[in-house]
Amino acid sequence: MNIFEKLESNVRSYSRSFPVVFTRAKMSKMYAEDGREYLDFFNGAGALNYGHNNDYIKAKIIEYIAGDGISHALDMYTAAKAGFLEAFEEKILGPKGLNYKIMSCGPTGTNAVEAALKLARKNTGRMGIFALTGSFHGMTLGSLSVTSGKTVRRGAGVPMPYVTFVPHPNGFCGDSIAYMENIITDEYSGVDVPAAIIIETTQAEGGVQVASNEFLQRLRDLCDRYGIMLIVDDIQVGCGRGGGFFSFERAGIVPDMVVLSKSISGYGLPMSLLLMEPEYDIFAPAEHNGTFRGNQLAFVGARAALEYREMAGLESRVAENDRLISDFIASRLLPMDGRLAHRGIGMIHGVDFEKLGDVSGKVARECFKNGLIIERAGRNDCVLKLMPALTIERDELYAGLEIIERAMKKVLAEL
Amino acid sequence: MNIFEKLESNVRSYSRSFPVVFTRAKMSKMYAEDGREYLDFFNGAGALNYGHNNDYIKAKIIEYIAGDGISHALDMYTAAKAGFLEAFEEKILGPKGLNYKIMSCGPTGTNAVEAALKLARKNTGRMGIFALTGSFHGMTLGSLSVTSGKTVRRGAGVPMPYVTFVPHPNGFCGDSIAYMENIITDEYSGVDVPAAIIIETTQAEGGVQVASNEFLQRLRDLCDRYGIMLIVDDIQVGCGRGGGFFSFERAGIVPDMVVLSKSISGYGLPMSLLLMEPEYDIFAPAEHNGTFRGNQLAFVGARAALEYREMAGLESRVAENDRLISDFIASRLLPMDGRLAHRGIGMIHGVDFEKLGDVSGKVARECFKNGLIIERAGRNDCVLKLMPALTIERDELYAGLEIIERAMKKVLAEL
Amino acid sequence: MNIFEKLESNVRSYSRSFPVVFTRAKMSKMYAEDGREYLDFFNGAGALNYGHNNDYIKAKIIEYIAGDGISHALDMYTAAKAGFLEAFEEKILGPKGLNYKIMSCGPTGTNAVEAALKLARKNTGRMGIFALTGSFHGMTLGSLSVTSGKTVRRGAGVPMPYVTFVPHPNGFCGDSIAYMENIITDEYSGVDVPAAIIIETTQAEGGVQVASNEFLQRLRDLCDRYGIMLIVDDIQVGCGRGGGFFSFERAGIVPDMVVLSKSISGYGLPMSLLLMEPEYDIFAPAEHNGTFRGNQLAFVGARAALEYREMAGLESRVAENDRLISDFIASRLLPMDGRLAHRGIGMIHGVDFEKLGDVSGKVARECFKNGLIIERAGRNDCVLKLMPALTIERDELYAGLEIIERAMKKVLAEL
Amino acid sequence: MNIFEKLESNVRSYSRSFPVVFTRAKMSKMYAEDGREYLDFFNGAGALNYGHNNDYIKAKIIEYIAGDGISHALDMYTAAKAGFLEAFEEKILGPKGLNYKIMSCGPTGTNAVEAALKLARKNTGRMGIFALTGSFHGMTLGSLSVTSGKTVRRGAGVPMPYVTFVPHPNGFCGDSIAYMENIITDEYSGVDVPAAIIIETTQAEGGVQVASNEFLQRLRDLCDRYGIMLIVDDIQVGCGRGGGFFSFERAGIVPDMVVLSKSISGYGLPMSLLLMEPEYDIFAPAEHNGTFRGNQLAFVGARAALEYREMAGLESRVAENDRLISDFIASRLLPMDGRLAHRGIGMIHGVDFEKLGDVSGKVARECFKNGLIIERAGRNDCVLKLMPALTIERDELYAGLEIIERAMKKVLAEL
Repeated sequence: MNIFEKLESNVRSYSRSFPVVFTRAKMSKMYAEDGREYLDFFNGAGALNYGHNNDYIKAKIIEYIAGDGISHALDMYTAAKAGFLEAFEEKILGPKGLNYKIMSCGPTGTNAVEAALKLARKNTGRMGIFALTGSFHGMTLGSLSVTSGKTVRRGAGVPMPYVTFVPHPNGFCGDSIAYMENIITDEYSGVDVPAAIIIETTQAEGGVQVASNEFLQRLRDLCDRYGIMLIVDDIQVGCGRGGGFFSFERAGIVPDMVVLSKSISGYGLPMSLLLMEPEYDIFAPAEHNGTFRGNQLAFVGARAALEYREMAGLESRVAENDRLISDFIASRLLPMDGRLAHRGIGMIHGVDFEKLGDVSGKVARECFKNGLIIERAGRNDCVLKLMPALTIERDELYAGLEIIERAMKKVLAEL
Repeated sequence: MNIFEKLESNVRSYSRSFPVVFTRAKMSKMYAEDGREYLDFFNGAGALNYGHNNDYIKAKIIEYIAGDGISHALDMYTAAKAGFLEAFEEKILGPKGLNYKIMSCGPTGTNAVEAALKLARKNTGRMGIFALTGSFHGMTLGSLSVTSGKTVRRGAGVPMPYVTFVPHPNGFCGDSIAYMENIITDEYSGVDVPAAIIIETTQAEGGVQVASNEFLQRLRDLCDRYGIMLIVDDIQVGCGRGGGFFSFERAGIVPDMVVLSKSISGYGLPMSLLLMEPEYDIFAPAEHNGTFRGNQLAFVGARAALEYREMAGLESRVAENDRLISDFIASRLLPMDGRLAHRGIGMIHGVDFEKLGDVSGKVARECFKNGLIIERAGRNDCVLKLMPALTIERDELYAGLEIIERAMKKVLAEL
Repeated sequence: MNIFEKLESNVRSYSRSFPVVFTRAKMSKMYAEDGREYLDFFNGAGALNYGHNNDYIKAKIIEYIAGDGISHALDMYTAAKAGFLEAFEEKILGPKGLNYKIMSCGPTGTNAVEAALKLARKNTGRMGIFALTGSFHGMTLGSLSVTSGKTVRRGAGVPMPYVTFVPHPNGFCGDSIAYMENIITDEYSGVDVPAAIIIETTQAEGGVQVASNEFLQRLRDLCDRYGIMLIVDDIQVGCGRGGGFFSFERAGIVPDMVVLSKSISGYGLPMSLLLMEPEYDIFAPAEHNGTFRGNQLAFVGARAALEYREMAGLESRVAENDRLISDFIASRLLPMDGRLAHRGIGMIHGVDFEKLGDVSGKVARECFKNGLIIERAGRNDCVLKLMPALTIERDELYAGLEIIERAMKKVLAEL
Repeated sequence: MNIFEKLESNVRSYSRSFPVVFTRAKMSKMYAEDGREYLDFFNGAGALNYGHNNDYIKAKIIEYIAGDGISHALDMYTAAKAGFLEAFEEKILGPKGLNYKIMSCGPTGTNAVEAALKLARKNTGRMGIFALTGSFHGMTLGSLSVTSGKTVRRGAGVPMPYVTFVPHPNGFCGDSIAYMENIITDEYSGVDVPAAIIIETTQAEGGVQVASNEFLQRLRDLCDRYGIMLIVDDIQVGCGRGGGFFSFERAGIVPDMVVLSKSISGYGLPMSLLLMEPEYDIFAPAEHNGTFRGNQLAFVGARAALEYREMAGLESRVAENDRLISDFIASRLLPMDGRLAHRGIGMIHGVDFEKLGDVSGKVARECFKNGLIIERAGRNDCVLKLMPALTIERDELYAGLEIIERAMKKVLAEL
């Protein structure tokens, strides 16, 4: 580990939670240089929904490279991009009756959020954005401005105005939609009608906070009534993580813009997309750009992933696994302590240790000792976040859940 | 081209200059779906210094994928990252006597610029940044704030303060360093001493504006005297484009931070690095992060590229090609019209048509018709920008230069 | 009226509600150039608590001018200022056990608010300010940033960040103090602990919204627990308007800073003060300044007003008039329509026509026709605001109330 | 002095330079409580151009108060305001062929500057303002944003963006107008065309920096060509201080807006005006307001001052005194040391000690010891600023100049 400690900036973080050197990986397994095998319930923070090095996708990528397919072309037209666009229309947009135009952004989620904010401001001529308490949208200055964590916000070193944080419905004493509507309509609220409201339908980093369908529907309605653009950040809970391909499908709403990244390439390759209703597609050419906005290998992977998704029947597997996980948590984890809580949807689930004090870290470390990679989220990182690959085998899923069970037993016994 | 026009956002741009669908590429050649071959003097805006699909690098990448090497691991420790770090230290930092710590940022240049600005602000406790007129540093809100182009700035839709633009030395009536020093020292200048000065040693998008060694040395001295951090954005002219691996080597200076991206992966794969003097490495863990900050394929490519660079003796080839290009421009292009100008260094050169009016676009289009991909830069895009791969063969280089020559003859004859 | 329409900017406003030319005034009466007499229930928006041209104060001012007393001296030491300071300590600060240091600001309320915001930021090293929905603190850029009215905010022409509007307790669905505390303590609220909370104990322009004693006490406690400075803007409801000399006396709290203006000079002369706890008095000399910060005639008037206040027993007269007004409203105005509402304290009272639609303007105009000057406040100006001079005679008070009664009868009959 | 030290905020400043308690004043003389007489070369930083307690103006003010003239009326129509407007049109605007609309602002210079900035932004829809290095425009947040002093800027405690400081022509290595035009026209300057340029034709606080007529004319032309509003801040050098009533008359230009304050009331009473070309008079009613925007005593004084100005032939007296002062400085002060410099116009003159180190303070203190009140300005306060009343008698003027001469002799001898 010498070379990392010697050369890597102190900003490195996950290597502190999982201090081994990984060499290989396959589907839900990662292998360290000492040969040890780990089960992965973290999956690149949602970037590996199809598992590590999924063979179907891998074959397509190797074939493409071997044939000297274009590897980099800025935003020129390429066969790889055409292949992705066709598949995305045929398998996603078309069947779901969606009509979005597609923008390839610099291949990071934060870059696509930046593009969305620009476009919302350009379409409305307004500056303000509403974001929710608990939100996480990225670390570049625009995205960070709509990210709620105060510590990371301070990292900006400059004020980040033009955003108003409104209360997430979960846990708010009042009605969050009514609160927003009051801000919008009260001449003396001090805050103008915003350009957009940006939301994660389920806050992942925020601690697995699932917004209800009713909330999402009322939010869509609020936006419609006041000409506010609704941006869904589907970076972590899209691409099937939340159930449907898009996380908002469950509520029957259509956002004005959707941000995709993480698992869209299917292979952990950097990629991001901004989807927008055609009427809002008013960027001038290159008004937002970036060198890697056409990551061709990612396009190849993304097409293959959409094919694989269908073939493997992932959507129904997610529904099934959702039940398995929920049942396991309800019957075997929560009973350990009445103060524990469970929240989740699709294949993102959280066990909340908030009321037990500083416990979640011990549980996660104990899991890692026993071969399970799992992360935490939420205020004080008190929520253990379960994000297995959508492709995980049932025995692997159980094995992972049981590692958690044993770890919790051990840690809770020591309290 | 139907699928692109139907689905892609209007923000697409290069596809408008080069309206064909590319399928394959090899070193300095790109191939369209109709089989047509193009010589590439653009190279992904500097992301393909080693040529398209360089065989040496390609083999390493395929081998890595085939062996199920980790494809995505956030910022965990991996063998691929170790391999890159070791090579970077052994082949670059060590020999050049540099002592930088390394941060893998979200894999876009703009993300690393954002990290640099955060870190400069954190180290100094100041907000202000000095940027130069003509600068281009990226399109996310922080990077855009130090980007000089007014049209792209307006795209932000919000003010972007905390930056003061100071005159680039080329063309400024006075002494640019003295101007900055006056701002810093005059109690009534209205502008505080900044956290950092960010500079491209040669502005690429700015129209191939080469800052002199003397200017860079005096700038380093100014920063030293007032405790200002010097950030060199080497995204486009680093990685050998400007001559040495780092573009600032020619001036004998050591910046406090260096931003690398574009060609660092060697294969056009998304990657970016922030290098920083160890004393400034004060980020808290994850204070700046991003899902794709460890693009493992890019690490593999980057190590291979450093190996290839040595084997191919690229540094001396660049020097040689610099002379060839400069001689060709001086002897065969500039004589066509006394109002033409030439600027360049290493393997980035510009022919400036500013004084001839709206001519450069016609020349570039004529080149493309004749099988040469070439872009423009600078105010009103009036500078034809020559950026062949560093690996270009001499006959290809001449062929490209002669396409330019013929295009200019034709267009100038029609004026 | 010709000269006004010809030369005065369109920004003029009260002359539109009261389109006559006034020449003379005495206590609660104003006289127009056509000889018509008006009863004044507006009193310079609270700047004339002692009545127009109060004889006691007037004599002192004329004597001072006649004796060539210093009329202008920036912030030099003068006998007039000493006279005021001594009286303010002897009659106000001392008896109330207050320990404030005193700053003479540029002689407008907004200027003193600007000074308060600067000082809060300097003392805490923080930027953020909490202001309440419904607030009005002034029209210069700093004060406007904490003013809630969206229309006047837009007049700034630039964003005014660094302020978070929190819900005024009146009408908020939840607990306003708990809401603030949640913002302060929740790591994911997006909003840092502020430098200060600024509040009018009774919002005048906001529509006569009286904060309860309990709210003020809990607010003081909140500020104490989190090291937040509490600024009371007593510009309109201080100087006896709200009952005690300071409006916050009723709640038994001591703000960290208090802003006074409007009636402090006693004669309608421009003057403002910032009071601050001694530990916060950390301005460098001239760190905030202004040419007229020592308006000497105002000092003379202010001393005389403090003397007059005692002699006339104003505090008990206010209490008595409060009851008279409240009783009149309750027994003779509210019964006219069940949708009417009354709010008030001391000698600021409002009759709220919100639920009757656009009615208040008609009532105010009808009053003016009948010789009563009265203004409106609140959202859509729907609150008729009663602010007689504290010195008003009982028969004048009744006469004014009966003009309102007749006007309301007439207007409501026509609905 | 006890009461001041006990109760006044540490922000007090002039009382530190002139630590006596003043009681009376008459024209160019001030009297302390110990009976000592002082000659006044400071005059309220320009607020007392007509001298202290000018008898002509005083009589009008006493008469008005005695007759119970309206003392405060917000911005209602009053006879006092009509009287001022008529006189201002008849004696100033009309004869000079000016067509301005007039806005009474909160009675401080800074408040009128705030109004001007708002109006410039509203008229152009732009945010940016150009201000000059060395500028001083006030201390409220908007005015402070265009004030150049870094120390006072830091007092804001928040960033103050939307202003670009451009080099004052005096001492700039290049052509200041060309520099501004380059910013405006260069697409890559990073700075948009501003809403307005705000300028003091002679910077007073900036160290008596006189902009040349040619500069002012070229600035007017620049503004015309790019649709930029030209705002002249005539707070300190207007009202006759710079020669003509308006300081810009000498250059034959007409600004789009003019800010007046300080001496406009003639008696040191708080007052400020914003003059604007009629086409720009687009404020909505009350879009900028303030309680004391109609300081009626100041209107009475202002009318009387305009009458007095004519009767006393002040304009020609200023020209004469300008020569006397200039000659005295040239013949008797500058010869003392070759490093001294003189700048001035009308009746504002500076003796610059910059090249002699920390000397000016000693000279000013020595003057005060000898009965002369005089202040300093400029970087490090190194400029002794001579601002006698325009009404000063010739023997008083000489007496003051000779006090300066003796003080300089003494101090320079001790160097």
